[in-house]
Amino acid sequence: MTYCVGIKTHQGLLLASDSRSNAGYDQVNTCRKMFTFVTPGERAIAVLTSGSLSLTQSVTTMLRRSYRAGEGLAAAATFYDAVRVIGECMRQVADLDRAALEKDGLNFNIHMLVAGQIRGEEPQLYMVYPQGNPLAATAEMPFLQIGEYKYGRPIIERGVVYSATTLESAAKYALLSFDATMRSNVTVGPPIEMLLYRSNSLEFDEYRSFGADDPLMLSIHSQWEHSLRHAVEQLPEIPFKACLPGTQPAE
Amino acid sequence: MTYCVGIKTHQGLLLASDSRSNAGYDQVNTCRKMFTFVTPGERAIAVLTSGSLSLTQSVTTMLRRSYRAGEGLAAAATFYDAVRVIGECMRQVADLDRAALEKDGLNFNIHMLVAGQIRGEEPQLYMVYPQGNPLAATAEMPFLQIGEYKYGRPIIERGVVYSATTLESAAKYALLSFDATMRSNVTVGPPIEMLLYRSNSLEFDEYRSFGADDPLMLSIHSQWEHSLRHAVEQLPEIPFKACLPGTQPAE
Repeated sequence: MTYCVGIKTHQGLLLASDSRSNAGYDQVNTCRKMFTFVTPGERAIAVLTSGSLSLTQSVTTMLRRSYRAGEGLAAAATFYDAVRVIGECMRQVADLDRAALEKDGLNFNIHMLVAGQIRGEEPQLYMVYPQGNPLAATAEMPFLQIGEYKYGRPIIERGVVYSATTLESAAKYALLSFDATMRSNVTVGPPIEMLLYRSNSLEFDEYRSFGADDPLMLSIHSQWEHSLRHAVEQLPEIPFKACLPGTQPAE
Repeated sequence: MTYCVGIKTHQGLLLASDSRSNAGYDQVNTCRKMFTFVTPGERAIAVLTSGSLSLTQSVTTMLRRSYRAGEGLAAAATFYDAVRVIGECMRQVADLDRAALEKDGLNFNIHMLVAGQIRGEEPQLYMVYPQGNPLAATAEMPFLQIGEYKYGRPIIERGVVYSATTLESAAKYALLSFDATMRSNVTVGPPIEMLLYRSNSLEFDEYRSFGADDPLMLSIHSQWEHSLRHAVEQLPEIPFKACLPGTQPAE
């Protein structure tokens, strides 16, 4: 399993991915799911992947090969075109592998987050579905997730506001979101990689990786639990009423 | 969809359920999922249900019928026996309906939470699987959930401790857990029903229902978001490092 999240705010982008790969319970590995394609001052594109590692590797191999040849993501005129390049690679891998997978009852189920900026445009954040079609984040829906997304969704949904949240705060929300997810699902695990992208920087020069014993992550974890319990204690008490026999619930 | 949670602490039990039923997107109804079986001073048993309403109704109809006849849940000598009565009813309904459902590609996928106390025993909390076998909550695993459980899990997992959490706090955690779930999944909805059971009371006399516009629920929702954002601001800043070209992530 995997968990990746992209957050888009008025200041830029915050991207985060876990690094656990598992094929069954006894084949657990570490593998990075964050890939960057950068021509400084001109374009900075990050791709985050979820789904079968065998399939996402084929996509990123194709993307890297064409990038080095000055094609694909290197040649896309707009960010939307770049996202379409990725969708097209996903479709090529589907053409290669999908029929064989389905013969054995396996799904072609990879998703990608694509985020960054091409000079002359605003920073952008997209999700690409397994079929290759893209979905863009908006001011109203300023974050996108792939993989095991449910545990880590409420904290971001409550906290992140496109027009108000700083990238520094977005990084904290993302880390709390991973903390919640890793606690509930052992197939999402460290290191957590994080990229902070400021609008118009056109390179990825703010990066952080959190290992399992990262002191800052552990300290944020314990401070957060403490604050959260304190905040619950501060909430008003919930009064209960006696249920008389005739008004028992669902009688 | 449904969301129900049961929490067991040193003081007793806290149970909560939503009330939304849907068959597709255009057939949405309100229906209670919390059922109680009480002989004051002798036994108090609550059953919370998830899964196809048609199937859970058949189970609760059987349970109610036998209870009125002084059998089934009314006659179970121990709480474990009571839970087994419910599992047995689920198996009877499976015998009635499962084959016909599977012929049309539908699953027999109902779950139940069973909580309460029989005189002479401690309060207990169980989940019953669709196959009828039961799982008990423990001091190390002091809560059980059925239905759409992921969104609402982190807040309870972080906060609830068997030996320390009061039932009044457990009620707040449960309400926050529903708040997170309802925000992310429209098939979980109000009214939220809540039962607070104090050890050895042997009746259900503390009940609360929260409608969609319940002023206390709305006030807790907004106070919580405020506290949470404040707590995030108080966390230490996450420092990022420049990634030099040769050390870019996942190059």
